[in-house]
Amino acid sequence: MHRTIGVIGGLGPWATLDFFEKILRLTPARRDQEHLRLVIDNNPKIPDRGPAILGEPGAEDPLPALVATARAVEAAGADLIVIPCNTAHFFYEHIRRAVRVPVLHIMEEVARAAAARMPDLTRVGLLGTRATVATGLYQKAFAPAATEVLAPDPRGQAVIDRLIYAIKGGRADEALRAEGASVGRRLGEAGAGAIILGCTELQLVLGEGNLGLPVLDSNQILAEAAVREATRPQVAPHEVPV
Amino acid sequence: MHRTIGVIGGLGPWATLDFFEKILRLTPARRDQEHLRLVIDNNPKIPDRGPAILGEPGAEDPLPALVATARAVEAAGADLIVIPCNTAHFFYEHIRRAVRVPVLHIMEEVARAAAARMPDLTRVGLLGTRATVATGLYQKAFAPAATEVLAPDPRGQAVIDRLIYAIKGGRADEALRAEGASVGRRLGEAGAGAIILGCTELQLVLGEGNLGLPVLDSNQILAEAAVREATRPQVAPHEVPV
Repeated sequence: MHRTIGVIGGLGPWATLDFFEKILRLTPARRDQEHLRLVIDNNPKIPDRGPAILGEPGAEDPLPALVATARAVEAAGADLIVIPCNTAHFFYEHIRRAVRVPVLHIMEEVARAAAARMPDLTRVGLLGTRATVATGLYQKAFAPAATEVLAPDPRGQAVIDRLIYAIKGGRADEALRAEGASVGRRLGEAGAGAIILGCTELQLVLGEGNLGLPVLDSNQILAEAAVREATRPQVAPHEVPV
Repeated sequence: MHRTIGVIGGLGPWATLDFFEKILRLTPARRDQEHLRLVIDNNPKIPDRGPAILGEPGAEDPLPALVATARAVEAAGADLIVIPCNTAHFFYEHIRRAVRVPVLHIMEEVARAAAARMPDLTRVGLLGTRATVATGLYQKAFAPAATEVLAPDPRGQAVIDRLIYAIKGGRADEALRAEGASVGRRLGEAGAGAIILGCTELQLVLGEGNLGLPVLDSNQILAEAAVREATRPQVAPHEVPV
């Protein structure tokens, strides 16, 4: 029996759609019933994470809505929960403690995938929201591997933030995409051996093609982890230590 | 305030993904929070509808799972429910009665769209599963408009069924798509002025381009109806007749 994947979605909606598609592509199924059950709460009404984390004036706290959404997907049958949004992982511990089922951690999954695929990686570039970079979530996840995380300078970071909000608003034009790609390439020139696409919107417009470096696509890695956990053989009751 | 759209999904998963994408494309949003909330239960474990309706030996009854899924999305916050699967509408009345929120009816929405866009349509072709055709759901929805519904002959219907299951299994090759399109074109030769894509998988491979006729895409029409209902201004309490 497969486990049901609960998705705290809508952060943003296009990233959730992309995550859903990745799950379908990762599932070897010849008919409907071989696919996985997902309970997706695509809840874009959750207040913006970045401004709240950065303490911007007037920013609304997204935590109550994040917790309510986690509980809604758990109540609807989720056996494990994912959050296809990097920035929201600032609230990870609060969300995890609010439910009984496991919640995957996107940064830990990306670090795990990097260790498996690129064991000699000494420096990795990080493209994500200003809040994701500022909270140090990736720096912490990569610390055990002694991999240094390189972030853009303030000017480059401003370009990435503009790009992310443009993708959310459906207006990421070619010039802005090219500008974003060049920020990533500069991290490569500074010594990064790979680029973390550390915002689940970025893989919609950036990739190895325009970055010229291997990428760690956080949305793809989270989808792979979700499928791994949903299809992992379950321990039979008599095998549970008592 | 927008209403939350509940989706009884996974029937099949690719149709649900396509429905979700259509909702996002139909929503004019410049930022996450302007998008609609959707609660999607992508539940491909629901038993196959066709064999159960046609009374095939060994077919499992999908109704209990359909009802449970409807109740799950209602409990998770849905204000209205959609079922992006034509065949499942055979069970519509049972599902509708199991929840307190409205459930849109895909055939009625297609007939309404046809009446608005093509008021002079006297004959319409129907491509859908054998069960959808056999249950007469489209024939009933188009009866008030006196529009005759033309279905393929048994040989053509077998091609369409094969095509639908191939799409579900990710193996709809070019030859099979071409064969499916020619079944649709023959309905045009028999007098159909438009083709109903009456299975939410078919628009993934058929369209005006290969059919050579205007199409009524049931998944697109259902998405438009869902956005219409989710964004419709609400009656203020004092306007409710008592």
